Amino acid sequence: MSAGRPSHIRPDGGLTMVDVGSKDASERFARARASIRMGEAAERALKDATLAKGDALVAAQIAGIMAAKKTADLIPLAHPLPLANVSVEFRWSAPGVLDVEASASTNAQTGVEMEALTAAAVAALTIYDMTKAVEKDIVIESLRLVEKRGGKSGHWSAR
Amino acid sequence: MSAGRPSHIRPDGGLTMVDVGSKDASERFARARASIRMGEAAERALKDATLAKGDALVAAQIAGIMAAKKTADLIPLAHPLPLANVSVEFRWSAPGVLDVEASASTNAQTGVEMEALTAAAVAALTIYDMTKAVEKDIVIESLRLVEKRGGKSGHWSAR
Amino acid sequence: MSAGRPSHIRPDGGLTMVDVGSKDASERFARARASIRMGEAAERALKDATLAKGDALVAAQIAGIMAAKKTADLIPLAHPLPLANVSVEFRWSAPGVLDVEASASTNAQTGVEMEALTAAAVAALTIYDMTKAVEKDIVIESLRLVEKRGGKSGHWSAR
Amino acid sequence: MSAGRPSHIRPDGGLTMVDVGSKDASERFARARASIRMGEAAERALKDATLAKGDALVAAQIAGIMAAKKTADLIPLAHPLPLANVSVEFRWSAPGVLDVEASASTNAQTGVEMEALTAAAVAALTIYDMTKAVEKDIVIESLRLVEKRGGKSGHWSAR
Amino acid sequence: MSAGRPSHIRPDGGLTMVDVGSKDASERFARARASIRMGEAAERALKDATLAKGDALVAAQIAGIMAAKKTADLIPLAHPLPLANVSVEFRWSAPGVLDVEASASTNAQTGVEMEALTAAAVAALTIYDMTKAVEKDIVIESLRLVEKRGGKSGHWSAR
Amino acid sequence: MSAGRPSHIRPDGGLTMVDVGSKDASERFARARASIRMGEAAERALKDATLAKGDALVAAQIAGIMAAKKTADLIPLAHPLPLANVSVEFRWSAPGVLDVEASASTNAQTGVEMEALTAAAVAALTIYDMTKAVEKDIVIESLRLVEKRGGKSGHWSAR
Repeated sequence: MSAGRPSHIRPDGGLTMVDVGSKDASERFARARASIRMGEAAERALKDATLAKGDALVAAQIAGIMAAKKTADLIPLAHPLPLANVSVEFRWSAPGVLDVEASASTNAQTGVEMEALTAAAVAALTIYDMTKAVEKDIVIESLRLVEKRGGKSGHWSAR
Repeated sequence: MSAGRPSHIRPDGGLTMVDVGSKDASERFARARASIRMGEAAERALKDATLAKGDALVAAQIAGIMAAKKTADLIPLAHPLPLANVSVEFRWSAPGVLDVEASASTNAQTGVEMEALTAAAVAALTIYDMTKAVEKDIVIESLRLVEKRGGKSGHWSAR
Repeated sequence: MSAGRPSHIRPDGGLTMVDVGSKDASERFARARASIRMGEAAERALKDATLAKGDALVAAQIAGIMAAKKTADLIPLAHPLPLANVSVEFRWSAPGVLDVEASASTNAQTGVEMEALTAAAVAALTIYDMTKAVEKDIVIESLRLVEKRGGKSGHWSAR
Repeated sequence: MSAGRPSHIRPDGGLTMVDVGSKDASERFARARASIRMGEAAERALKDATLAKGDALVAAQIAGIMAAKKTADLIPLAHPLPLANVSVEFRWSAPGVLDVEASASTNAQTGVEMEALTAAAVAALTIYDMTKAVEKDIVIESLRLVEKRGGKSGHWSAR
Repeated sequence: MSAGRPSHIRPDGGLTMVDVGSKDASERFARARASIRMGEAAERALKDATLAKGDALVAAQIAGIMAAKKTADLIPLAHPLPLANVSVEFRWSAPGVLDVEASASTNAQTGVEMEALTAAAVAALTIYDMTKAVEKDIVIESLRLVEKRGGKSGHWSAR
Repeated sequence: MSAGRPSHIRPDGGLTMVDVGSKDASERFARARASIRMGEAAERALKDATLAKGDALVAAQIAGIMAAKKTADLIPLAHPLPLANVSVEFRWSAPGVLDVEASASTNAQTGVEMEALTAAAVAALTIYDMTKAVEKDIVIESLRLVEKRGGKSGHWSAR
């Protein structure tokens, strides 16, 4: 994977999977995050609805974990990976802002960034699905990688 | 679907699918958008790589369309729908900002917001996957619904 | 579908899907049930673990609903169906016995018995998965159809 | 995996995958069983239908094997595993009782109980699907683990 | 769908699903065929193996039927369709030539050619998988549509 | 895997997966090919449509790669494999003949012939899907393995 060039795009613009056959398997970890920004009505409705029991958040957690396991089925050039762990957590980080953080780990020849990002994205979409009857303007903001460990590039944290 | 309440959450916090059995099928349309914000190096690399032929964008378009067809498999309480059409388009909207717009349509008892949002999300994640070797700080911003037609609530556009 | 003969097996033993092309679509409903029988330790552990918040039961509920949507992908000769609703509920029905009840409904040319049964089976297996560290002898008992409405055979209830 | 506590449920009731990253891969084997109990008419019809050629049983065998490969897609917190083998067999064990036995094996960081149980469940449901035109009261009984080898807990047999 | 132009390719070379939203649903049928050509050893081995009971052919039949149900998941721009029926049959048509014929039918806004072709292809590949230990030179020949009914173009038969 | 016998068929005709648990993992590679034969009109239309930009061929390439990752989900007795690489390429090899070549590689206990063949088949079917509006008589010819490396049988090339 040469820095400075998109790894899946050949010089002529053609596509290619990255052949990971000659890479050594190693411990890999990635953490991704997204923020779900909603209006007052949706925030109140979602908080009320999940006060007694947080089933909606559990459904989104489960959706995120199951989506991580489908990453290679969703992202065309991603490799199927034997995931060791996936986690998805929610936290109200500011008024009207519900953060989702997803992490994934494996021992494999390639990283799990896409697994963590896919888990965060689908968990956030599941929250949207359950809240859209209250407010359609809900926005999923800043879906991004925040940390990555393992592989040739070692440890990396978002700025 | 009572406005003011999350449609999939019962008063006690428990979850439920929305029973669409008594709703009439009608034409439904939804359009979603996301912005992929990247640094100069990634922008230049992606533009260079897709100048001669835009295979990377085609892969992301295909990934988005195929993901729309998997929406009910990803979002726990979503209904399986016979999609009539799905489209995914890309556009550089500002320096370092690649926009993805996805739309979906059907004739069914429930809407296709989640299909359009899922297509946009997975198309954007596919761009991330192909560009992450250049820059990991790429952020998927403002994944949101921008338009919706059909169903009881009629036409709706984002503010 | 001639009573007295397995519908998918031809007189010579060969297999065939049931051609539903000439049947009229109508409202269909099916309800299935299973009982998860466990020892005292597992019952106590599961009740303790789900007392504060029932996330484990929510995960099993979600797993059952999502499995119903995959029925045609699991059962070789089942038809893909546009499900209108799926529900999965749990109830402690006796000491050491956790019942799961799943129902499914659609407007289609064929029934949803397999969807309801598949939801109940996978919901019960998910409970097993989360409890097996405490007791491996947990048994899923009496997975069966309990009610069916719609179609040529009309209303049916288990004895 | 601490005995006495459900492995996927945290003390506060929240859910978590079991991180298998630090476990050593080892040979794993699991065997599960279920009994399909049916009335005389269904037994006779199924036996007649499968006397000349047992295609119905083959379809159920194939369905069970393919379902084992989908276990991580069905059970929310299950890990994707590289299965080395899956087998599904049928046997009339008593009047009106068709037994299904499924086994699975792998060399991995976690066991294959859920794979064997899922194979048995889906094989039994496939038999139900093909026989339900004759009798709806067919019951899938005693879906359970009967043997397990490998991993920290070593060899285990059902009572 | 304008004859003379690939329906999914826009004048500028870009891709698009065919929007079927304005088409009327009607009865659709398609039949596809492929021939599996093998050497004497493989033919003898396969005939011997399937003489007593044809389980290998049943597995391939089931694989073809299940693949037809996955067509929209495999072919990027194909629409998900509610299949009414799928059938797969085998016939030794000449020395060393095993023919597979697959048909599919639906009542929908678009045809089932891809479903029939996908069923035939995957059924043939399954035969290859089970026979490849005897002979690797087995060739799947002439995978093609042979008949199509319904839709604007009406009845069509291969030359 | 005894030469001379279909590996998945027992002497009595029954089916079995090949237990790969005792085989050593090693580097595996397979290459498959198919030819898509079309008439003049389809050839001209497809060449015209892909002259400016080859999006149709990219879609087929992506479809083939994604199908390779689904091989174990399509072929009943195939093992799930951690693919290291998949490639799909197209080439006009003669008037009216578009060749597709697919290769797959892994480090595993069993080979990737089925993955390469599945990629070639689905890539070819995707071309058919996009061209069928011009000509239905398009034939997918000679889907076959052309090379295989690794495993007990070592290197093999088609005659």
